[in-house]
Amino acid sequence: MKKVVTELKIKVPFYDLDPMNIVWHGNYVKYLEEARCDFFSKLGYDYMQMYADGVMYPIAKMDFKFIRSAKFGDDLTVRCTLNELEPAIIIKYDIVNDAGEKILSAHTMQMAVSTKSGETLFVAPEVLKNAVENFGE
Amino acid sequence: MKKVVTELKIKVPFYDLDPMNIVWHGNYVKYLEEARCDFFSKLGYDYMQMYADGVMYPIAKMDFKFIRSAKFGDDLTVRCTLNELEPAIIIKYDIVNDAGEKILSAHTMQMAVSTKSGETLFVAPEVLKNAVENFGE
Amino acid sequence: MKKVVTELKIKVPFYDLDPMNIVWHGNYVKYLEEARCDFFSKLGYDYMQMYADGVMYPIAKMDFKFIRSAKFGDDLTVRCTLNELEPAIIIKYDIVNDAGEKILSAHTMQMAVSTKSGETLFVAPEVLKNAVENFGE
Amino acid sequence: MKKVVTELKIKVPFYDLDPMNIVWHGNYVKYLEEARCDFFSKLGYDYMQMYADGVMYPIAKMDFKFIRSAKFGDDLTVRCTLNELEPAIIIKYDIVNDAGEKILSAHTMQMAVSTKSGETLFVAPEVLKNAVENFGE
Repeated sequence: MKKVVTELKIKVPFYDLDPMNIVWHGNYVKYLEEARCDFFSKLGYDYMQMYADGVMYPIAKMDFKFIRSAKFGDDLTVRCTLNELEPAIIIKYDIVNDAGEKILSAHTMQMAVSTKSGETLFVAPEVLKNAVENFGE
Repeated sequence: MKKVVTELKIKVPFYDLDPMNIVWHGNYVKYLEEARCDFFSKLGYDYMQMYADGVMYPIAKMDFKFIRSAKFGDDLTVRCTLNELEPAIIIKYDIVNDAGEKILSAHTMQMAVSTKSGETLFVAPEVLKNAVENFGE
Repeated sequence: MKKVVTELKIKVPFYDLDPMNIVWHGNYVKYLEEARCDFFSKLGYDYMQMYADGVMYPIAKMDFKFIRSAKFGDDLTVRCTLNELEPAIIIKYDIVNDAGEKILSAHTMQMAVSTKSGETLFVAPEVLKNAVENFGE
Repeated sequence: MKKVVTELKIKVPFYDLDPMNIVWHGNYVKYLEEARCDFFSKLGYDYMQMYADGVMYPIAKMDFKFIRSAKFGDDLTVRCTLNELEPAIIIKYDIVNDAGEKILSAHTMQMAVSTKSGETLFVAPEVLKNAVENFGE
């Protein structure tokens, strides 16, 4: 499978901070989602296209390892790496701060589900496989 | 118009706190929504019923006056008072802490909108007017 | 008083949407805060500086008028206009979508509060007044 | 180690829903935190006590497995089970709906950290060990 890596910059907003003056751990789920939307958009296969194709990709699993904290105004980079495409989409995330220090690593697993039948699809749609093959070309 | 007043208790969760160790001001919008859902539920006219009737009540305006701050674990009481029913639903909110001190006052204005035509309705649905008339009986 | 106007672009993320597939109204409080931080930063008087000066600017009042809804991926522009500086900072916000249509207008009122004494200051700090006078030069 | 199991009821609020009309996956991090605060409170060792003891328990890892979706108004039960106490606190979470169906399972791992030295403590504080031993008595 082709190597697919994308990066998104996120600046930490004030409203994501907790009483320790650092990003509340649950807010990283939002950063992952923003980076994942950006990942699919750069693949040329965004959520609108998925909708049109009758396929949803709900999150079936996710895990996080928190390494350092992030503060107000930090410029974070969220790197997405496609680990697996079938039977489920597994994306690995690494977040680093502007000093290049790793903030966290995480994974999400998404299953392809038909919006019509509600059935889980264990084979990735052709349009997604093609998008991966043509990435960066 | 009949006097309609309801109260909902909300315990401040940790994730609503900001770096000053108090509830971030934007989180009160959630507390108002919880109290408003409870208000309509106690009226016997909840969101499921609204959906079934083909009417939505989006927020058209809201205003807040912040008086005191709230801390982790505070037991807040959100009091809803129906101020107007037509042409728009205006609810007044008062939030007090367990010492009886006022935390904030606020208002929301909701317009009734037909889910079919998308048109704004300036007359409240009969079912809502009846619910108000029968409140507490 | 000098005219101070700033603009910030915000792209609507998926996690801000509600069941109507539009931005949940409470999330606009976040957009205002991001724009306000950007406003103070462009003034050259950001939150870090405020902290160092021993002055906080909590929100005392806010009001919103919702005009149109915003959808996933919309490129919103939040325009901040300084309306008053003393005795309180009043900022007016206008959010427009990429078609130039107005999404909402809003205001916040912030009081200057000494972090040492906890007292409200009815005269704006000199550093803030100077920042306003020197804006854009 | 003594078996420590607690349960907290959470009613799904409207503002936690996403465009699919189900709870957005990131919001479950909040439900876990509420249940975890309740867990420590029922142990007789709450966050205020931790602060006073000079120990924090930041989340070092978390993982989620999503099984079913939850809807507006669902009465969820979050069950916390203490899996390990040393060298890290591992809590298992199971969320079931009012039909008794499992919504998700999850784990958090928390390290004890000294608020003074910033060092990680690999031995649980005595007060916590005692709280576990005395649970339910």
